[in-house]
Amino acid sequence: MGRWTPNARGRLETAALELYDEHGYDQVTVTQIAECAGLTERTYFRHFADKREVLFGGSQLLQDHLVQRVTDAPPSAAPWAAVTAALSTAGDVFPADRESSRQRQRVITAHPGLLERELIKLAGLSEALADALQRRGVPARTARLTADTAIAVFKAAFTRWLEAPEQPDFATLVRQASEEQRAVVGG
Amino acid sequence: MGRWTPNARGRLETAALELYDEHGYDQVTVTQIAECAGLTERTYFRHFADKREVLFGGSQLLQDHLVQRVTDAPPSAAPWAAVTAALSTAGDVFPADRESSRQRQRVITAHPGLLERELIKLAGLSEALADALQRRGVPARTARLTADTAIAVFKAAFTRWLEAPEQPDFATLVRQASEEQRAVVGG
Repeated sequence: MGRWTPNARGRLETAALELYDEHGYDQVTVTQIAECAGLTERTYFRHFADKREVLFGGSQLLQDHLVQRVTDAPPSAAPWAAVTAALSTAGDVFPADRESSRQRQRVITAHPGLLERELIKLAGLSEALADALQRRGVPARTARLTADTAIAVFKAAFTRWLEAPEQPDFATLVRQASEEQRAVVGG
Repeated sequence: MGRWTPNARGRLETAALELYDEHGYDQVTVTQIAECAGLTERTYFRHFADKREVLFGGSQLLQDHLVQRVTDAPPSAAPWAAVTAALSTAGDVFPADRESSRQRQRVITAHPGLLERELIKLAGLSEALADALQRRGVPARTARLTADTAIAVFKAAFTRWLEAPEQPDFATLVRQASEEQRAVVGG
């Protein structure tokens, strides 16, 4: 149990990832996850609504973090600057250990239902960013287009981050993807 | 039955839209849709796998159309030019009657499960466009970023198309959204 963090939530997440990755998502029960984490099923359900949500705790964390960053951007910042600066800090809420993110991605990619859930979380993130931009006075349609365009950058940066060794960091990958996107659209 | 097209598939789609819009998606059965279309349940299931798919027949049509357009673009066309030129022709496969698309959107927006399905179809479209770009020799990562960026334009144009009266046409809205996006990312 040396690599487990002392907190129950983190232990459950680590145990679920290990088990899902080794045996396949459908083959693992909440009982097994709790057991493997040295905790009870009751504790599991205090932290996660179901068997799936243990994989998506980070999504809400990421969304709250990015929305806060957009909200806190200087009033003078243009929408694109505010949202890309926020994305550049996403690495702050990723697990320190890039390998556990890769493990999570393997589990999700192997299961259509989880892939769908991931898409829905990403769409929710886009909507939350658009709302944050609107609160900064950006018109609704522009906010939406800006957020959706930023999500394309985020996805590209995240894929590269998973594939890369410990460097480059997420901020660098966001800058690169954003520059590539600008070149693509002919800017 | 005057406004129904003579084909069974189209009649079922029209009947489903009317009933879902009037009574709510969860309240309507396949039996009712078939009845309202003057057809049998058996005929319904020859055309659609379930109650939901009657709303998404257009998604596959659109995807096939756009992929074909990207594939047929002149070899010299840059990825962005190929994909935006394809999007500009999407109006060719939309229903002639813009009001039925609005009706469909109302039904989908009112139901979280349908909204999720719509997102998944859109993600599938992005993937199909990326694959088509790859077959033109575009590297995988660039193809993905290009397709995701194009989907942001498509979503913006489609929202505006639904809101607009019979003009401007879809091609104009794609051009406008694409110009706005270029301005947003600072090109």
